Amino acid sequence: MKKNIRGEQKDVYPSRQYSSPTHIHRQDPVIYSNDRKKAPLEEALLDQYEKKGFLFLDDLFDDHEVADMQRHMQRLRDSDEIKHRAESITEVSSGDVRSVFDVHKLSHFFQSIAQDPRLVRIAEYLLGDEVYLHQTRLNYKPGFRGKDFYWHSDFETWHTEDGMPRMRALSMSITLTPNDYHNGPLLLIPGSHQTFISCVGETPDNNYLSSLKKQDVGIPDDVSLQSLIEQNGIEAAVGQPGRIILFDCNLLHGSNSNITSSPRSNLFFVYNALSNRVVLPFGNTAPRPEYIAARKSIKGLKKSD
Amino acid sequence: MKKNIRGEQKDVYPSRQYSSPTHIHRQDPVIYSNDRKKAPLEEALLDQYEKKGFLFLDDLFDDHEVADMQRHMQRLRDSDEIKHRAESITEVSSGDVRSVFDVHKLSHFFQSIAQDPRLVRIAEYLLGDEVYLHQTRLNYKPGFRGKDFYWHSDFETWHTEDGMPRMRALSMSITLTPNDYHNGPLLLIPGSHQTFISCVGETPDNNYLSSLKKQDVGIPDDVSLQSLIEQNGIEAAVGQPGRIILFDCNLLHGSNSNITSSPRSNLFFVYNALSNRVVLPFGNTAPRPEYIAARKSIKGLKKSD
Repeated sequence: MKKNIRGEQKDVYPSRQYSSPTHIHRQDPVIYSNDRKKAPLEEALLDQYEKKGFLFLDDLFDDHEVADMQRHMQRLRDSDEIKHRAESITEVSSGDVRSVFDVHKLSHFFQSIAQDPRLVRIAEYLLGDEVYLHQTRLNYKPGFRGKDFYWHSDFETWHTEDGMPRMRALSMSITLTPNDYHNGPLLLIPGSHQTFISCVGETPDNNYLSSLKKQDVGIPDDVSLQSLIEQNGIEAAVGQPGRIILFDCNLLHGSNSNITSSPRSNLFFVYNALSNRVVLPFGNTAPRPEYIAARKSIKGLKKSD
Repeated sequence: MKKNIRGEQKDVYPSRQYSSPTHIHRQDPVIYSNDRKKAPLEEALLDQYEKKGFLFLDDLFDDHEVADMQRHMQRLRDSDEIKHRAESITEVSSGDVRSVFDVHKLSHFFQSIAQDPRLVRIAEYLLGDEVYLHQTRLNYKPGFRGKDFYWHSDFETWHTEDGMPRMRALSMSITLTPNDYHNGPLLLIPGSHQTFISCVGETPDNNYLSSLKKQDVGIPDDVSLQSLIEQNGIEAAVGQPGRIILFDCNLLHGSNSNITSSPRSNLFFVYNALSNRVVLPFGNTAPRPEYIAARKSIKGLKKSD
C-alpha cells in the first residue's frame, strides 16, 4: 500500500487496498432530507429513488429546451478549439470526441442548464444541503463504433481518486438522443447503491489519462456483479431525448457497445453536497485535474428557493 | 487487383475490388422452391422469410433436446483437447474460447442435430435442392467481457474468401442460452438480404486467422448501413433457449458487446445447396481451411423424405 498522504483519518470506504474484493454496507443515507412535504418530487418517486438508487424524469424540460441543448451540444462537438483542449476525451481507436468535461465552464448555455432551479432543487432536497458541481461533461457515443463502458460505481472513483468523503452526491444525465435497446443505453443495477464494493488493484499514477477511455482499476469483480445482478436484475435507460436519468453516486452502471447507426449523447452533471466537498484522495494518489474534479474555490449554487 | 486465379469466369457479386462501395441488387431468388403445398413451413412464415430475410422458429425442439444440446456444448467447451485445436477460436483479450468450428465432425451428437430431418427439410425447401453443411460452429459469447461483432453479410465472405458462387445458402442459429436485450443478442437488418454491398479493401493473406476474432475487411461502409437501417430498422433475436434463428446468407447481422453476467451461446449450421458448392475464392486468395469452409468430398445430407 502507498504511504497515506492523508494522515490517519479513518476511511469508511477503502478501495484498491486489499487483495480480495470486500463488500461494505452503505454507511450513509440515500435521501438526506426528512420533510417530505417540502420535497420537489412525489412520494412514490422518492421511495423508488431510495430503493433502486435511480429515477427517470421525463417531463422536466420542454421540446424547445431540448432542441437548444442538442444545438449547443453539436456546436461544442464541432469546435476544433474544444477538440484539442485537455477537457476533450477521444475514443481509443478512432480519435473521435467521446466526452467533453467542464461544459458548464466552456459554455454559458450549459452553465445555465446546470444551475437550473428545477435541477438544483431536486439535488438540494435529496442531498439535504446546498450543492455544487463536482463534475460536468457531455458524453458522445457515436454510431457504428461506439465502445462499451464497463460496470462501475462513480463514487468508488470519486472517493479513491478525488477524495470525496461520503456518499452524498448524485448525477443527472440528460439524454440528448433517443436511447433504445440497441444503441448502448445506460444499464443500471437497481439497489446496488446500498453496497460499496471495495475493488482490487492499485491505482497507477495519472490513471485518469486512460481510465476515462477504458477503466482498468476500480472495477467490481465478477462474483460481486453476478450476485448483485441475480438479486436485482438490470434496467436499461431507454427513452426519448430530454429524459433525466437521476442516480445515486454509488449505483453500479455501465453500457454495451453501439454498432447501430444511431449515436447516443447525453449531458452529465454531478451535484455534491457542500458539506461533502473533496479532501485529499483516499487512494493516496495526486488529485485529478480541476476539470475532472472540482477542488478550488468551491461555492454552493445559488439557493433555488 | 490481384491476378484472377479463377480465370475469366464472370463474378456477379464482386467485392473488395473497387475503391468505393457499390450496391448490387440480389441476382438470386430468396426461396427457390415454388410448390408451397409441399413446404415444411406455413405460408405466412415463407412470406416473412422472403421479405425480411429471416425467421424465428420457437417450437421445433423440445426441452429435453435443448437440455441435451446445452450439456454437449458445455462438454466441448470444457475439453482441453478441443481448446487447443485449430477449430477453436479464442477472444483477442482474454484467450477464452469464442467459437468452435466443425462441431458436426467433432461430435456425433452435433452431427445428428445438424442432420435432423426437421432442419434439413426446411433448408432443402428454401434452397430448392439437396443441401450440405458449408460450415458449422458453436459460438460462445461470455458474460462481462463479451465483445461486439460488427455488421456483415456472411455471403460476402463466403463468396470472396470461400468461392460460394451464388446466394443459395442459409444459416440456422440455435440459441442455447436466454437472449435478452442486454446480453448482446443477434441484431438483424430486415430486408438487407436484397442488396449485395460490394465492400472496399483488399483481403490480406490468411485473413481468417484474425477475421474470425475481429473482421476488418468485408465490412459494409457507414453510408450503406445508415441507409439500410433508416429504411428497415433493426430487429433483435431475443428469446428463450432452443429458438432457431433462420436467416439468408446475405442478411446483414451483427451484435453488440455483453457486459451482463449472462453468457450468450448458440449452435450455428450453414446449409448450402449442393448445386452451389464452392469453387475457387472470388477474391483470388487461397481457400480457407476445410474446417471453416467445406470443399472436399461434398455430398448431400440424407434426403429427408
